[in-house]
Amino acid sequence: MFPQHIIAKKRDGHALTREEIGAFVRGATDGSWADYQLSALLMAIFLRGMTPEETAHYTEAMMRSGTVADLSAVPGIKVDKHSTGGVGDKLSIPLAPMVVACGVPVPMISGRGLGHSGGTLDKLESIPGFRTDLSLDAYRAQVARVGCALIGQTKDLAPSDKKLYALRDVTATVECIPLICGSILSKKLAEGIDALVLDVKFGRGAFMKTKADARQLAEALVRVGKAGGKKVRALLTAMEQPLGRTVGNALEVAESIACLRGEGPADVMEVTYALGAQMLILGGVAADVAEAEAKLQAVVADGQALEKFRQIIAAQGGDARVADEPEHLPQARIRVTLTAPADGHVTDVDAMGVALAALRLGAGRARAEDKIDPAVGVGSLVKIGERVTAGAPLGVIHANDEGAATEAKAMLAKAITVGERPGSTPRLIDEVIG
Amino acid sequence: MFPQHIIAKKRDGHALTREEIGAFVRGATDGSWADYQLSALLMAIFLRGMTPEETAHYTEAMMRSGTVADLSAVPGIKVDKHSTGGVGDKLSIPLAPMVVACGVPVPMISGRGLGHSGGTLDKLESIPGFRTDLSLDAYRAQVARVGCALIGQTKDLAPSDKKLYALRDVTATVECIPLICGSILSKKLAEGIDALVLDVKFGRGAFMKTKADARQLAEALVRVGKAGGKKVRALLTAMEQPLGRTVGNALEVAESIACLRGEGPADVMEVTYALGAQMLILGGVAADVAEAEAKLQAVVADGQALEKFRQIIAAQGGDARVADEPEHLPQARIRVTLTAPADGHVTDVDAMGVALAALRLGAGRARAEDKIDPAVGVGSLVKIGERVTAGAPLGVIHANDEGAATEAKAMLAKAITVGERPGSTPRLIDEVIG
Repeated sequence: MFPQHIIAKKRDGHALTREEIGAFVRGATDGSWADYQLSALLMAIFLRGMTPEETAHYTEAMMRSGTVADLSAVPGIKVDKHSTGGVGDKLSIPLAPMVVACGVPVPMISGRGLGHSGGTLDKLESIPGFRTDLSLDAYRAQVARVGCALIGQTKDLAPSDKKLYALRDVTATVECIPLICGSILSKKLAEGIDALVLDVKFGRGAFMKTKADARQLAEALVRVGKAGGKKVRALLTAMEQPLGRTVGNALEVAESIACLRGEGPADVMEVTYALGAQMLILGGVAADVAEAEAKLQAVVADGQALEKFRQIIAAQGGDARVADEPEHLPQARIRVTLTAPADGHVTDVDAMGVALAALRLGAGRARAEDKIDPAVGVGSLVKIGERVTAGAPLGVIHANDEGAATEAKAMLAKAITVGERPGSTPRLIDEVIG
Repeated sequence: MFPQHIIAKKRDGHALTREEIGAFVRGATDGSWADYQLSALLMAIFLRGMTPEETAHYTEAMMRSGTVADLSAVPGIKVDKHSTGGVGDKLSIPLAPMVVACGVPVPMISGRGLGHSGGTLDKLESIPGFRTDLSLDAYRAQVARVGCALIGQTKDLAPSDKKLYALRDVTATVECIPLICGSILSKKLAEGIDALVLDVKFGRGAFMKTKADARQLAEALVRVGKAGGKKVRALLTAMEQPLGRTVGNALEVAESIACLRGEGPADVMEVTYALGAQMLILGGVAADVAEAEAKLQAVVADGQALEKFRQIIAAQGGDARVADEPEHLPQARIRVTLTAPADGHVTDVDAMGVALAALRLGAGRARAEDKIDPAVGVGSLVKIGERVTAGAPLGVIHANDEGAATEAKAMLAKAITVGERPGSTPRLIDEVIG
C-alpha cells in the first residue's frame, strides 16, 4: 500500500478501508509516511470527509497507536468528561471531585490549552506543588486509591494524534469533524474509561461558532464513541460570555473551590451539575437527572466533594491548604478595576474579547513554547443581564506588568457592553445528545 | 501572509491573489514554506481548482522563480514544441531540424522521461558523445549559431517546478490541470520563446486517457500561454498504439533519422508535419498548413533537414556519422522476433503494453535513479490495420539480457492482437486548438 495510492483514493472521494486508515495512522506514528504525504491526506480528508465507519476506524487506529490504559482492576464504571473548550471553562476541576464523591471513578487525562487561555492542566498547576506529569502506572494506582487522577497526556497515549495535530495546526486542517473526533476520542478511549460525557460548546468563545456545527460534532462524537464500545452522551452548551466570573489559572481554581463549597457562580454550578448528572447516570449510581443532581448537591453540602478535592491535590503533590485558604494560590501584584461608565444593564460580555485580554496578561499561550503566568487574569466579571450603577466594578484585571494591565483593561472595556435595557440572558444548556 | 491562511483560503474554495500565489511559489523555492504546507495547498488546489487568472499567476510566478532566458539577440520568432508524452513519441528529434531548416529558430529545453520510456534527452544521449547538459549561455549561443539547441532543464530554470513536481509525484496531486499548466508552461516560457506548439495526447498510452480531458488541458495551456504573451496553438492527437515502429532510445533515434530522410513510418511523418506546419505558421514563414507542409517536405527532400540534424549533433559533441550510418548507435546483443500465430489483421497494439515491455528491457526508468540502457527496446512493430500471415514478424525485441528478452516477448505478445477482420485505423490528429 503506497501512501500516494491511499491519498489518491480519498482525493477521489472514496471511503478508505480499515487497513488503509491503519497504514496512514501507522505511517504518522513510525515515520514511514513523510509529513507532506500525511498533510496531503489530511487536506483530502478535510475536503472529502470520512464516513462514520472511516471515522471509527481512524479513532481506533489512533487509540491503538500507543498504550491503552487498563483500568479493569478499578471497580465501577469509569466515567470521564471532555469539553471542546471555552473561555473560563474550569468545569473539570469542581466536577471531578463531586462525581467521585458520589461513587463514580473519574480517570481524567487532559490537554494543555494552546489557545487563548490555559487548559485544565495549567489551571491545576497553579496550585503550589501540584504535579500533572504522572506515569500511567501512578495514574492507575491513584484512580484505584482516590477514585480520580487529573493528569496530562503522556507520550504513550495516542502518539499519532500528537503528530497529526501538530501538522493539522500548520496546514489549515484543524476544523474537520472526523479529524476532531479521532483526536478527542482516541485519547479519551486510551484512558481506560467505560463512559464519557461531552460538553460541546458553541458560540463566539467556542471552537464551533454555530449550534448546528456543534450538534454535528456532538453527534459524530457520540456515534464514534459508541462504535468504540463506550457509553457516550453529549451536552450542547452556549459559550457567548465567559463561564463564571474569572478567566485565568489561579483565579479559576479559586472559583472552582467556591463551586465545591456550593458558592460558585450560578452558571458554573448549573453546567457542572448538568454534566455531573449525566456522569452519575452513565456511571450507574443515579437513575435520572433529578436523582443525580440531588446526590451532587448533597456531596457539596456535606463537604465530601471538597474533601475529595483535598485528597486529589495531596495525592498529586499539591498544597491541599488551597482548598480552605485560597490565599495560598499565586497572587498577582497589580489589580486594576474596570468600572461602569453609567448606570445600566450588562448587555454583552464577549467571551473572546475577555479571553484576549487574559492572554495579553499572560494567562494563556500564543505559541506552544510560551510560559503561562498562573496568577494573572480577569476576575470579578459581571454577567449578562446584571444591573450596574455608574462607577461599579465590571471586572478586575490581575496583572504582574503595568503595561499589560493597561492594555488588558482597555481590551476588557471593549468586551463588555452596558446598555439601557436588560437584554435576554442566553440559555446555557441547550440539548442532550446520545 | 502565513502559509496556513493561504491554504485555508484555497481550502474554502476562494481564488488566491497574485501575491498569495507568489508567496506560495516563493515558499517552494526558498524553503520558507514547509513541504507539508506545500503539499496541503497542492491538494487543496487539486480539489478546489484554480481560475484562469490564478493559473496564469501561478505559471508566471513559477517562471520567475529562476532565470528567464533572453533570446532577443537571436533574430526571428523563436518557436518550441511540447508534447504531453506518449509511447514511441520521438517527434521532437525529426521535428526540430526540419523546422529550423525552414528558417524558424527552435530553442528546446526538454525533460527526462520518468514514466515507461525515456524522454527526448535520453533518446538523444544514445548518440555517442551527445551532451544535453549545456549551460544557458552555451544554449543561447548555439541557438544563435545553429538555430537550435536540444538541452535538458538546467537548475536555473523554474526551480520551483522541480520542487513542486517532486512533491506532487508522491502526494497524488499530479493529474490537476492548473498545476500541469504551470509546470509545463513555466519551463517553456522561461526558455525565451515567442511561440509554442503543443501536442496534447489522449488515449491508453497518454497521460490524459480521454479526449475530453485532453481538450480541457489543451484549452487551459493555450489560454495561459497566451496570457503570458506567447503565440500558442495545440493539437489533440491520439495515443492508442505506439507512434512509429520503435520504442527504445537508440531505436527511436534511428527511426527519427529515417523520418528526416522522408522514409519514416507514415504516422510519425503525419504528426511531425502537422506539428511542424503549426510551428512554421506561428514562426511567420508560412501562411497556412498547405504552404507550411510543402516547405517541410522540401527540406526533407533536398537533405537540408538531415544536414541541420548533423549540425545540431556536432554542436552538442555527438557523433554526427549516425545521421548517415545508424550502426554507430548502440546495438543490443540479443534480438528475438515475435511472430504472428495465424493469418489475420492487426486489430490492436496496446501502447501501454508495448511501453511496459520496453521498460522491462531497461529502455525506461521505473524510478528516477534507474539507469537507462540506450540500445534496448522494441523494433519493427506492426501497426493497427496491417495484414499479417502466420509466422510473420509482429515486432522484434532488442535486449541485453536473456531473461528480460523472454519476459518482454511475452508482454509484447499480450499487447498485440491479431484478428480475422481488419479493424478501423484510429484517426491520429483530432483537433487544432488556439
